[in-house]
Amino acid sequence: MTVSLDDLPIRDDLRGQKPYGAPQAPLPVALNVNENTHSIPAVVADDIASSVAKALHGVNRYPDREFTELREGFARYLGHGLDAAQIWAGNGSNEVLQHLLQAFAGPGRSVFGFAPTYSMYSLLTKGVGSEWIAGTRAADYSLTAEDAAAQVRAAHPDVVFLCAPNNPTGTPLSLDVVEAVYEATQGIVIVDEAYQEFAPKSSPSALTLLEGRPRLVVSRTMSKAFAFAGARVGYLAADPVLIDALRLVRLPYHLSALTQAAAVAALRHSDVMLGMVDEIVAQRDRMTAALTELGYRPYESWTNFLLFGGVTDPAATWKALYDRGVLIRDVGIPGHLRVTAGTEAETTAFLAALGELGRP
Amino acid sequence: MTVSLDDLPIRDDLRGQKPYGAPQAPLPVALNVNENTHSIPAVVADDIASSVAKALHGVNRYPDREFTELREGFARYLGHGLDAAQIWAGNGSNEVLQHLLQAFAGPGRSVFGFAPTYSMYSLLTKGVGSEWIAGTRAADYSLTAEDAAAQVRAAHPDVVFLCAPNNPTGTPLSLDVVEAVYEATQGIVIVDEAYQEFAPKSSPSALTLLEGRPRLVVSRTMSKAFAFAGARVGYLAADPVLIDALRLVRLPYHLSALTQAAAVAALRHSDVMLGMVDEIVAQRDRMTAALTELGYRPYESWTNFLLFGGVTDPAATWKALYDRGVLIRDVGIPGHLRVTAGTEAETTAFLAALGELGRP
Repeated sequence: MTVSLDDLPIRDDLRGQKPYGAPQAPLPVALNVNENTHSIPAVVADDIASSVAKALHGVNRYPDREFTELREGFARYLGHGLDAAQIWAGNGSNEVLQHLLQAFAGPGRSVFGFAPTYSMYSLLTKGVGSEWIAGTRAADYSLTAEDAAAQVRAAHPDVVFLCAPNNPTGTPLSLDVVEAVYEATQGIVIVDEAYQEFAPKSSPSALTLLEGRPRLVVSRTMSKAFAFAGARVGYLAADPVLIDALRLVRLPYHLSALTQAAAVAALRHSDVMLGMVDEIVAQRDRMTAALTELGYRPYESWTNFLLFGGVTDPAATWKALYDRGVLIRDVGIPGHLRVTAGTEAETTAFLAALGELGRP
Repeated sequence: MTVSLDDLPIRDDLRGQKPYGAPQAPLPVALNVNENTHSIPAVVADDIASSVAKALHGVNRYPDREFTELREGFARYLGHGLDAAQIWAGNGSNEVLQHLLQAFAGPGRSVFGFAPTYSMYSLLTKGVGSEWIAGTRAADYSLTAEDAAAQVRAAHPDVVFLCAPNNPTGTPLSLDVVEAVYEATQGIVIVDEAYQEFAPKSSPSALTLLEGRPRLVVSRTMSKAFAFAGARVGYLAADPVLIDALRLVRLPYHLSALTQAAAVAALRHSDVMLGMVDEIVAQRDRMTAALTELGYRPYESWTNFLLFGGVTDPAATWKALYDRGVLIRDVGIPGHLRVTAGTEAETTAFLAALGELGRP
């Protein structure tokens, strides 16, 4: 007897859907999912490994449900006078964002974001049964405070996502937009700073706005700057009362003892871990210059990736690069492709392959 | 400015709730959450540590979203002719169960279980916006096929939980109940075998019923028999098509590369890991005899814990044990307490402390 998904009593809104996910193809140069393509330094890996080995002694017991040491580590890393009571974490920032939506969205509520933006926002929103409302951006994907606030005021959503800097476009977001949007809503405002470490060092984080704004959340991830995508650690800072709300919706013991030990150890080495950031930013800026030279139109980026326009046939260019062993991402914006800033060698390989294709 | 949870736009159904969770008290003898109180053997811990150390080399990349090697490991461990396409896993069996409810329950649907049973079932159900329906059991917490099927037929739920053996009562569930309940519903039937490894070796698993039953799911955990509660690894076996439905609701990359490496390594040593099971079962049976001797009424248990009745004042007994350094669990059944079978020394400490309290 062969059954299909239609034979099972799956929820109606899932019928016909396909799972999310970029292709995981084993190509020599993978610049498609904005990973940090630098391995973590050996000295850090060794310390993490011995911390995990120590945690294995007690792995027969449930982990610290409050992951106190890890929250303390994040508070120390983020600075800005934060303490552990203002920190939350999960298995990747997707889980942290899901906790926020489970607490503050859900059926009958709505969630707002400025498209194009991180595609998981709308998927997470539909997953908790909320309505997704897509706002708009200027032609260069930027946002002004006045326009952003007006759009949010008109939509009166329960939760607003501000991706800063924005994925998949790389676009900076200035803090006056955050302030204006916060004033324009009575809902939760999530500033997703997944790529903040790649922004100019002088640019302030939305963490500076937390004081006196109990509905404001700033989320981060260890996947990018910390080269820790495989370890799945996302986190956020917010008012301690908002953190309490997340305790109501998380699964008990959601963060394993091994994850906690690995992340705590990595945070002890944040200076070394973040040493890779400057190198990645240098390659990003090198790509900006080279893509312009080749006749493409890269957008301003404060992240570890570049969106570039002026691509006549994105699918064909994507495939031609694929055939040359270089994997980048077609994010579905007509005339555009997205590429992650890799190591110097990977960047060279990408630019060489693209150069072979001739003018766009 | 001080805010309270009521000042935040939290979902109405969460207002006034308290987070789930047994107290995590640092007592010398902790027999409250059905952990395996034996540390994993050193030889296994060493192999897991070196597997995790190897995985750290690639931790800058996202993990295998399909956790293929781990699914192969579970298929091999479970036997019964299963293959990797029939396996799913998550961060603890709670997450695996949540995936099932996200795919097959959700708003407007209902979920059924025979009370008293694992308290997370109703919490997970409410978390996805479904209605929880509590069925009933006989006075000794057993279930007959006829009664169980009649209750399910009357409730016509979308999902049925069968906890086999049952937590918090330890009660065995015979496979004719599973067969009858499956026939009595068009919904998904989840047999939660979290404690199956502690059942008599001759007792068949519901895995033997999977063939030809595409709506049947058998869930397991590494937390108990594998002494891996801190690593958060739950899993299930079902029809490959049902597994496909779970791919629609899981967060991408939900299982970290470190979790995958640790679990794969532990499964390589399943024989050694399961060596602790016989010792735990022996202590459970020793407690059954001793509790009866002391004048309590322990229930038949096929798990690593015992529920016992005949407790005049459970809160007072719980506190008296707590004061003697022994932590057990008041599961909210009047006149009853629950205790985990620990090591020989822990069991002795528990029985001695209880003995000091005199006749119930």
